[in-house]
Amino acid sequence: MNDKSNILKYKHLGIYTQNENVAYMRKDCHVCISEGFEALTRIRISTLRSSIVGSLHVVSSEILQPGEIALSETAADKLKVTEGETLCVSHLEPIESLGLVRAKIYNQKLDYQAYKNIITDIIEGDYSNIHLSAFITACAGNRMDIDEIISLTKAMISSGKQLDWNKDIVVDKHCIGGLPGNRTTPIVVSIVAAYGFTMPKTSSRAITSPAGTADTMEVLTNVTLSPEEIKKVVEQEGGCFVWGGTAELSPADDILIKVEKALDIDSEGQLIASVLSKKAAAGATHVVIDIPVGKTAKVRNEEAALQLKEFMEVVGEAIGLKVKVVITDGTQPVGRGIGPNLEAVDVISVLKNEEKAPKDLRERSLALAGELFELSGKVAQGMGKSVAKEILDSGKAHKKFMAICTAQGRYSHPIVAPYHFEMHAPKCGTIKSINNRKIAKLAKLSGAPQSKTAGISINIRLNQEVEKGELLYILYAESEGELNYALEYYDNQEDIIEIE
Amino acid sequence: MNDKSNILKYKHLGIYTQNENVAYMRKDCHVCISEGFEALTRIRISTLRSSIVGSLHVVSSEILQPGEIALSETAADKLKVTEGETLCVSHLEPIESLGLVRAKIYNQKLDYQAYKNIITDIIEGDYSNIHLSAFITACAGNRMDIDEIISLTKAMISSGKQLDWNKDIVVDKHCIGGLPGNRTTPIVVSIVAAYGFTMPKTSSRAITSPAGTADTMEVLTNVTLSPEEIKKVVEQEGGCFVWGGTAELSPADDILIKVEKALDIDSEGQLIASVLSKKAAAGATHVVIDIPVGKTAKVRNEEAALQLKEFMEVVGEAIGLKVKVVITDGTQPVGRGIGPNLEAVDVISVLKNEEKAPKDLRERSLALAGELFELSGKVAQGMGKSVAKEILDSGKAHKKFMAICTAQGRYSHPIVAPYHFEMHAPKCGTIKSINNRKIAKLAKLSGAPQSKTAGISINIRLNQEVEKGELLYILYAESEGELNYALEYYDNQEDIIEIE
Repeated sequence: MNDKSNILKYKHLGIYTQNENVAYMRKDCHVCISEGFEALTRIRISTLRSSIVGSLHVVSSEILQPGEIALSETAADKLKVTEGETLCVSHLEPIESLGLVRAKIYNQKLDYQAYKNIITDIIEGDYSNIHLSAFITACAGNRMDIDEIISLTKAMISSGKQLDWNKDIVVDKHCIGGLPGNRTTPIVVSIVAAYGFTMPKTSSRAITSPAGTADTMEVLTNVTLSPEEIKKVVEQEGGCFVWGGTAELSPADDILIKVEKALDIDSEGQLIASVLSKKAAAGATHVVIDIPVGKTAKVRNEEAALQLKEFMEVVGEAIGLKVKVVITDGTQPVGRGIGPNLEAVDVISVLKNEEKAPKDLRERSLALAGELFELSGKVAQGMGKSVAKEILDSGKAHKKFMAICTAQGRYSHPIVAPYHFEMHAPKCGTIKSINNRKIAKLAKLSGAPQSKTAGISINIRLNQEVEKGELLYILYAESEGELNYALEYYDNQEDIIEIE
Repeated sequence: MNDKSNILKYKHLGIYTQNENVAYMRKDCHVCISEGFEALTRIRISTLRSSIVGSLHVVSSEILQPGEIALSETAADKLKVTEGETLCVSHLEPIESLGLVRAKIYNQKLDYQAYKNIITDIIEGDYSNIHLSAFITACAGNRMDIDEIISLTKAMISSGKQLDWNKDIVVDKHCIGGLPGNRTTPIVVSIVAAYGFTMPKTSSRAITSPAGTADTMEVLTNVTLSPEEIKKVVEQEGGCFVWGGTAELSPADDILIKVEKALDIDSEGQLIASVLSKKAAAGATHVVIDIPVGKTAKVRNEEAALQLKEFMEVVGEAIGLKVKVVITDGTQPVGRGIGPNLEAVDVISVLKNEEKAPKDLRERSLALAGELFELSGKVAQGMGKSVAKEILDSGKAHKKFMAICTAQGRYSHPIVAPYHFEMHAPKCGTIKSINNRKIAKLAKLSGAPQSKTAGISINIRLNQEVEKGELLYILYAESEGELNYALEYYDNQEDIIEIE
C-alpha cells in the first residue's frame, strides 16, 4: 500500500458472484484514469493486511460516489474489509504460471514444478474463470500422461493442509460418480469405524450430479468442520463424514470443481489428482476405489475402467498409498432416492436394517467395507464381506453412525419436499433401460442439490415387469418453477426409462 | 413473456462488464426464490421484443428495491431496455451445443453441422466466458484437422453478413501477426485501389499485440462502418480500411477474440477460420497471406510456416478462394513505431514517400501489392512489384489513401503521447537481437492499444553498430501509472535488445 494516489474508500454494495473476485469502480475514478483501467482489467486490491486479485467492473451511475470502491461479497470476505476502510488498487503483476497453461494448451508436457506453480496461483485467486476453464480443458481428453497426473496430484497435496493420525492403517474409499443414488460412503464409514478402523472421510459436493456425499450428509448432520474439529470427531469415533472444502485439504480442487461444474466435465487427469490428493492429504494409507461401469454411467466401458484403474494404482503407489480399484455394475441408479434428502432416507434405512431398505445399496456397501477389511491385511481374503455384514446386521454400524453425527454437531431427520409429480408407466412390459444421465439431469432440473429435498424417488429396477399405469418414479421439488422446469425437460425426452 | 409471476422492473445501475451479460437481482427477490436462482445461474431475460442469456449476480443491499432487476450495460444495450420497463426472467433451456464442445474436449472430430450449431449459439450470446474459453482451448494445439478447420470456417462465414461486389476480381491480404509494427495493409490497399482493383479490407483489433490494423487506422479515420457504409466507400474508392467487428462479417470471431486475448493465445485452427472466413464474407476472390517467420514472431520456424501455408491454401480452395501464402522475414519489428499512433506515423511517411520513411515497411508493402497484382493474373509474373512501386512513387497511392479516409468520414493527423522515456545503449557494440515478444509486451504495458498514443518508437535495426548512450528506443504512455508499469517490467528483463 505504498502508492497514496491509488487509494479508494470501501463501500458495501452486497453483490454476490460466487468464487469470482470483482471490484467495482467509477468510470471517472482517478485511479481508472491514471492507471488506464477498464472493465475486466485484472487488478490487485490491497488492505494494510493482505491483498487479492480481481476483475474490474466499471460503474457509471451514482451507486458509487467519487473516491469509492466496492467489492463482490467473496472478495470483501477474503480481504475482511469494513465499510469506509481504505483500499489500494494497482496493476496486476504478470502471472508467470499462465505461460505454463499456454504451454499445456500447445501439448507440452509439464513437470511437478510447473503444476505446483499453477496450483499455487490458483489458490491465491490469481486465475480468472477464463484461465481456470482453459487449464481444465487443456488437461482433459487424455492430454495428461501418468507422470503429469502424479505431478499434479503431488502439487495438489502440498498445496493444502495434511492430516496425520499416527496410525499404521487409515482407510478411505471413493466412488467415481456417474451413478445416481450410489451413496455407500456413510454406511461404509459406519461399518469400518464400528470395527475399530480409522476412516477420516472427506467428500465433495456434487460436480455434475444431483448430489455429492457431502450434499447428502448435510441433510443429516453438519459437514463443514474445520481441520481441528475433524481431528476431534475422528479421534473420538474413528470416522467422520465431512465436506472436503472447509477441511482445507487440497484447496485447489474446490476452485477447479466449480468451473468443471459449469462445463459439465470431469476430466480423467484432474479426477485422479482430485481424488487421490484428497485421500493422501486426509492421511489415508489404504484406499478402495469403486468404478461403476455402464452405458450411461461416468465410465462407459470396461476398457476405460481398466485404464483408470491402472492410472489410479500407479499414481497411488507414487504418492505412497495402497490403492485397490474395484469395477462394479453401473447400469442403473442405486437405491431409490436421487437428490440429497431422498438419498439420506435410503442410507438411514440400510443402517437400520429396515425391511424396505434398498438391497443394492446394502450389498454395495457391504462389498466395499469388505474390500477395505481385506486390503488392510487385518481380515483374511474372502472374509471381508461377512465381517462387514455382521457389524451391519448387529446394529453396531447404525449406532456408530448416530455417534458420529452427534460428534459432528447434530442429527436431523430427512423431510419431504413440498411439490411432487408422479410418473406412471405408459404401457405394460419389462423395464429395458434406465438412463442414468437423463435421470440425473431431471433430478438436477428439479433443484437438486441446491434444493435439498428435491430429486427423484425411483420405484422400479431393470428387468422388472410393470403394469400400465404402475408408478415408475416420483419427482420432488421445492418450488413450482423448478418442478415445471424439470417437467418441460421430461416432455422432450423419449428414453429416460424404456419399457418393452 | 407468458409467465406473469416472473416479471421484474428494470432499474439502471450502469455497470459495464465488457461482453458479458449480467443480470442483478435481489437475493430475497420472489423470482430467485420461486425459480431457485442463485449467483452465476444462467438465465434468459426477455422484453416483449427480444431476449438474451446472462449470468446472475445476487444483490443483498438497497441498490435494488424489491421487484427490481438491473442489467450490465452490454445486456441493457442488446435488449434496448428503458428505466422502469418490465422484464421477464426464466430458467435457461439446456444449450445443446455445449455437448458438442464437450465432445471436442474429449478429442472427438466435429462436422460442419456441429461447428455451425456452436457458432450460432455463441453469436446468440448463450455461452459464458467459461464455455468460450473451453471451446477455444479444445480447438487449440493442433486439435482440429483440416476437415474441421474447413467446417469451422464455413460455419463462421454463414453466421454473418456476406458482401457481394459483382466483380471477377476482389483482392485482399492478411498478415499472420506477431511482428510489431508490420502495418502494410493501409499502404497495400491504397496502391491496389489506385490501380483500379477492388479491395474491401476489414481488419481486426489487436488480439495479443500492441496494435491491430483497425487500432492503427482508427487514429487516422473512422473504422467502425456499417455494411452499407462500407459498400458505399468501396464502390466509390475501390478500397477501405475498416474494423471487421461492426461490418457484421463473421461476428463469432469478435466474441472469440476477446477470450483469446484474455488467454493470450491465438490457435492455428481458429486463426485460419478467423482469417479466411472474414475474407470470404467480405467477398474476396484472391487473397495473399503474409507469414513472417522469426524466433520471436508468432510463427517461429519455416516448418510451422509451411504447415500453416498448406492449411491456408487447402481451406482457401475448399471455400472458393484463390490463396497465395508468402513467408517473410520475422526476425525484428517492422518500421519504427509500435502502437496505434506510432504505427500510423510510419504509414503516412511511406505513403508520402518521405526521406525518413522506414524502408522495410515500404519494401514489404510493395512486395505484397506486387503479389496481389500477379495472383490476379492481370499483371505478368515478375512485374507485380514494379507496377506497385510506380503507383507509390507517383503519389497516386497517397492520394487514394486520403480519398478513402475522407470517404470513411475524416482524416486526423497522429498526435504525440504526453509521457515518454528514452532507452539508451548501456554499451557500444552490434545489435545482435530484438525480442519481438518482449518489445510487444513493453508496448502493451505502456497502454497500447487502448491508449492510442502509447507504444514504442525504435531507433535501431538488427546488426547495426551503436555507441554507448545512443538512443535505442522511446517508450510512450498516456498516464504515469502505465509508464511506470512498463518500466517496472523493463527493469526485470535482460534481453529485450541484445548488444554484442
